[in-house]
Amino acid sequence: MVNRRMSPDRLNTTFAALADPTRRAIIARLASGEASVTELAEPFEMSLPAISKHLKVLQRAGLIARGREAQWRPCRLAAGPLKEVADWVEHYRRFWEESFDRLDEYLRELQRKEKKRVHKK
Amino acid sequence: MVNRRMSPDRLNTTFAALADPTRRAIIARLASGEASVTELAEPFEMSLPAISKHLKVLQRAGLIARGREAQWRPCRLAAGPLKEVADWVEHYRRFWEESFDRLDEYLRELQRKEKKRVHKK
Repeated sequence: MVNRRMSPDRLNTTFAALADPTRRAIIARLASGEASVTELAEPFEMSLPAISKHLKVLQRAGLIARGREAQWRPCRLAAGPLKEVADWVEHYRRFWEESFDRLDEYLRELQRKEKKRVHKK
Repeated sequence: MVNRRMSPDRLNTTFAALADPTRRAIIARLASGEASVTELAEPFEMSLPAISKHLKVLQRAGLIARGREAQWRPCRLAAGPLKEVADWVEHYRRFWEESFDRLDEYLRELQRKEKKRVHKK
């Protein structure tokens, strides 16, 4: 199960599902609690079939789960694939930390030069 | 600049670029240092035009930059969009941490029951 979840195919499906602003907005909405399809459709001014299509993509990627307990089958966020994205991107943390360190150093250097210039006047 | 980078469009392009195993492998390769297109093509058994196509997608997403200093124009990893992915997914950390906590608790509960069962024998 864990192996299947961590396969490259799984990451492909997850990243493809996240490459859409409506689907990311649905995820953001579900972060504050489960919701029905009708509730999810409200803020988007989209038809129910259009929202259902997005939900199917999210469900196939394992990013959301549908309840079975009620007739309205509420959607809720599923955490697994998001953790996989976090684990994947974590490998590259040193790259952005290094580049921000370099920017920081550059700005400090500019400040030093500016101070020198002001003192000389 | 920062606003443009953080726009939803930018995240769409980044996630779409990451939804391919060859492109993620190119990123992993570039994490260990810059490389020419020929060097990048080697491990993939792909034609140079096929690799170039993937590089263009990565470049449009701002995930890689091409050097201008040499004729072979080495590719290197650019950190910005990866940091945006990390920032985006970080919002949902509590979801996977909570679900792993629940799994942990469930397993402990099973262990307690198992011990009781064994003691009764």
